[in-house]
Amino acid sequence: MSVTIRNVRHRDGSLMDLFLEDGIIGRTGPGGSLPDGSEPSVDGAGYLLLPLFNDCHAHLDKTVMGMDWIVNDLPGSLAALAANERENRLALGADPYRQCARHIRASLACGTGGMRSHIDIDTTNGLAMMEGALAAREEYKDLFHLELVAFPQSGLVSRPGTVELVDRALALGADVVGGVDPSSMDRDSKGCLDAIFSLAQKHGKPVDIHLHEPAELGAYDMEEIITRTKALGMEGKVSISHAFCLGSHIAGLVPPLLEKLAEAGITIITCGQPQLVTFPHIQEVTAAGIRVCCGNDNIQDLWSHFGTPDMLQRACYISMKNSCRRDRDLEMVLDLCTRSGAQLLGLEPWEPVPGSPADFMLVRGVCHAQCVAQPPHDRMVFRHGRLYARNCTVAEA
Amino acid sequence: MSVTIRNVRHRDGSLMDLFLEDGIIGRTGPGGSLPDGSEPSVDGAGYLLLPLFNDCHAHLDKTVMGMDWIVNDLPGSLAALAANERENRLALGADPYRQCARHIRASLACGTGGMRSHIDIDTTNGLAMMEGALAAREEYKDLFHLELVAFPQSGLVSRPGTVELVDRALALGADVVGGVDPSSMDRDSKGCLDAIFSLAQKHGKPVDIHLHEPAELGAYDMEEIITRTKALGMEGKVSISHAFCLGSHIAGLVPPLLEKLAEAGITIITCGQPQLVTFPHIQEVTAAGIRVCCGNDNIQDLWSHFGTPDMLQRACYISMKNSCRRDRDLEMVLDLCTRSGAQLLGLEPWEPVPGSPADFMLVRGVCHAQCVAQPPHDRMVFRHGRLYARNCTVAEA
Repeated sequence: MSVTIRNVRHRDGSLMDLFLEDGIIGRTGPGGSLPDGSEPSVDGAGYLLLPLFNDCHAHLDKTVMGMDWIVNDLPGSLAALAANERENRLALGADPYRQCARHIRASLACGTGGMRSHIDIDTTNGLAMMEGALAAREEYKDLFHLELVAFPQSGLVSRPGTVELVDRALALGADVVGGVDPSSMDRDSKGCLDAIFSLAQKHGKPVDIHLHEPAELGAYDMEEIITRTKALGMEGKVSISHAFCLGSHIAGLVPPLLEKLAEAGITIITCGQPQLVTFPHIQEVTAAGIRVCCGNDNIQDLWSHFGTPDMLQRACYISMKNSCRRDRDLEMVLDLCTRSGAQLLGLEPWEPVPGSPADFMLVRGVCHAQCVAQPPHDRMVFRHGRLYARNCTVAEA
Repeated sequence: MSVTIRNVRHRDGSLMDLFLEDGIIGRTGPGGSLPDGSEPSVDGAGYLLLPLFNDCHAHLDKTVMGMDWIVNDLPGSLAALAANERENRLALGADPYRQCARHIRASLACGTGGMRSHIDIDTTNGLAMMEGALAAREEYKDLFHLELVAFPQSGLVSRPGTVELVDRALALGADVVGGVDPSSMDRDSKGCLDAIFSLAQKHGKPVDIHLHEPAELGAYDMEEIITRTKALGMEGKVSISHAFCLGSHIAGLVPPLLEKLAEAGITIITCGQPQLVTFPHIQEVTAAGIRVCCGNDNIQDLWSHFGTPDMLQRACYISMKNSCRRDRDLEMVLDLCTRSGAQLLGLEPWEPVPGSPADFMLVRGVCHAQCVAQPPHDRMVFRHGRLYARNCTVAEA
C-alpha cells in the first residue's frame, strides 16, 4: 500500500510532500511536487510534521479510564493513596490487561509511539499487574514500543517477599528495575539501593528510581544512587524520575548534584506537575549536560482524576512549569518529549527523509512553538505508513 | 422562540428537561417528561447543566490571538516584557478594539458570560486600549457582562501623567481602579496606594490590585491595602489579584494576613499558573472566610504564547495547582469559577429553575468533578435561550 501526503510543514517552515510505501518514507519533495497517480492521497493542510512522542514515565496499570466513575474522597497523604490503590484496585474491577491496553491505545491515538511504564509490584497483588502489562505489550508490539519497569511502589526491602517478586518480574520480561524513595519509603536507603542495584546486575538491566524526597534528603539518596552507578560501571543505564530535590532553593545544594549526575550519565525524567513547589528546572539540568526526558505520569486513576495520555498537552504543562516563554524554549521541550525520549528507549533518531519509517505525526499549527504552547487535538498519527488515528481518536480500519 | 432541551444532568445526578421561552427557563421536569410539540428540541445527551463561567482576571487588550505568529525571543524579566509590550503593541498591529472583541467572542464560545478585565493604561499609548475595550464592550453588551479595570501596568505615580489618564478612563466608563505592586513597581507604596484609593473615592468605584510581591514585601503592601480599605469603609469593594505572598512558607506570616483580609472583606483572585512557587492556597483562603474568584489571566500575548479563553481548562489548572484530588474539592473549584465570580461581578446567582434566565452551559461529563479534572471541549453554550456556541466555537446563526 502506498500513500501520498501533500503539503506538510517541515521544521524549517517549508512545505513538503511525502510518498509512503511499504511502511517507509519512499520519497520526499517540495510541497505540491510529487506526481499524482499514487492514490490515496492525504491533504497535509500545512500541518507540522513531527516525530512520534516518547512518554518516558507512565503508569499503564493504574488508570481507571473507561471504567465507571469512582468518587475520590481520600485523604491526601501518599501512604494513604498508595494503600488504597494496593488494597482496592482489583476489587474495584481494574483489570490490569484491559486497563494497560486502553492506555496504550489512547497513547497511540495521541501520537505516542514509545513508552517506559512503571508497573506496580507488591505482596498484595503479586505480579497481577505485570502479567497484564506484558500481555498488553505483546498485543500491541507491532505498533507500540514499550519498556516495563518492575516498580515496588509499596516498598522493596521493607515488605518481605517484594525483592523476590521483582526478581521474577525481571525474569518474565520486565526491562528495568524500579524503586521509590529509598529513605522515606523503605526507611533503609542502603538496603533498598543495594537490592535495586543487585537485581540490576543480576539481570543486566537498567534502573529507574522515583525520587520525590525533597532537599537534603533527596540529595542524600541521589548521591547514593550516583555512587552505585559509577562503582558498577552503569553510566548511561540509570534514570531518576521526578528528582524534586533538584529544584531545592537551598544555596549550593543543586550545582554539585548536577555535576555528579552528568559524570554518572544519569537521565532525569520529569513530568512538570503544576502543584509542585520544587522540581528540576529543565534549562538548568540540560545545560549541565544531563539528558532530560518527559512523561505523563499516572493519569485518571485512584490517586487523582487528572491527566491525559497526550504528550503534547504534557509538553505544554512542562513548558509552563519551566517558564519556557520563548519560541526556542518551547521547541526544546518538544525535543525532550520526542528525540530525547527515543534516545532513552534505544530507538533510532527519526528524520523525515527517504528510508525512514513512515511513523510520524501531523499536528495543526504554524510552528513548533505554537503546537506546544497551544496544543491542539487536531492531528494525524501515521504508523507503518497508514493513518492510525485522527484528532486523538483511532481511525476506522 | 422556544426550545426544549431533553435529558440534561442536574447537579444531583438526575436527568431533567428544560423548556426555554423568550430567553427564560419556562418549565423544567424530569428527563423525558416535557411534551413534544415545542420544537426545535435539543438532545441534552446527559450533559451536565452548569451556570456560565465568570472570568475574574482577564487582559482582553493584550491578546494577539488571530494575528500572524509573533516569535517570542525576549528576556524573561517582567520589566523587559512589560516594556516590549508597551513600546511595540500598536506597531505590531494589535488593534485594541479588534483584539478585545476576538477575546470576548472566544470567551463566550467557551461558556464565559461575565468577566473582569484589566486594560493597560500608560503614558505611551494613553487610553487607546481602554477606548478599544469600551467599544468592544458596547458591541457585545447584550451577550457579555464586562467590568473594565483601569490598569496602570507600567506604574502609576512613578510615571507622571498616569494618574490623570486613569482618572479619565474612570470618567469614560472604566468600572474599577487597578494597580500593581506598589513597592516594587512604583517604588512608592504610600504614594501609589494613596493615589489608587483617592481615585476610587472620587469616582465611587472598587479597587483591584495585582500583587506579585513575595513574602514580607507582599505582606507589607497587603497590610497597607487592608488599612486603607477599612479606613475608607470600602469593605467588600477591594480585590487583590494573584496575592502570591499568601503562599509564603515563612512560619507565621500568612495566618494573620488571612484574618485581616477576611475582616476587610477583601476578595482574592487567583489564576493558578503552573510555574508559581508560592500562591494562595484556595482551601486555606476560603476556609478563612475570604471570597476567592478565578481568572485566565493573559492569554496568547506578547508575554507568552500560553493560555486559552476556556475557564474549564483554568478550573483544571487551579485544581491541579491546589492538589484538589477529591471530587468535592473539584466541585468547589467549579463553584469558584462560576458562582463566586458572579458574586464579585454583582450578578444574580443562577439556578436551573423556572424564571431563571436561559443562560447556561451543557458540558460532557458524568459529574462535575470529571468535567473539571478532564475538561472536554464538548459543550453547548446557551445565551438568551438560544444555542450560542457548540464545542467552544460560535454556532452558525
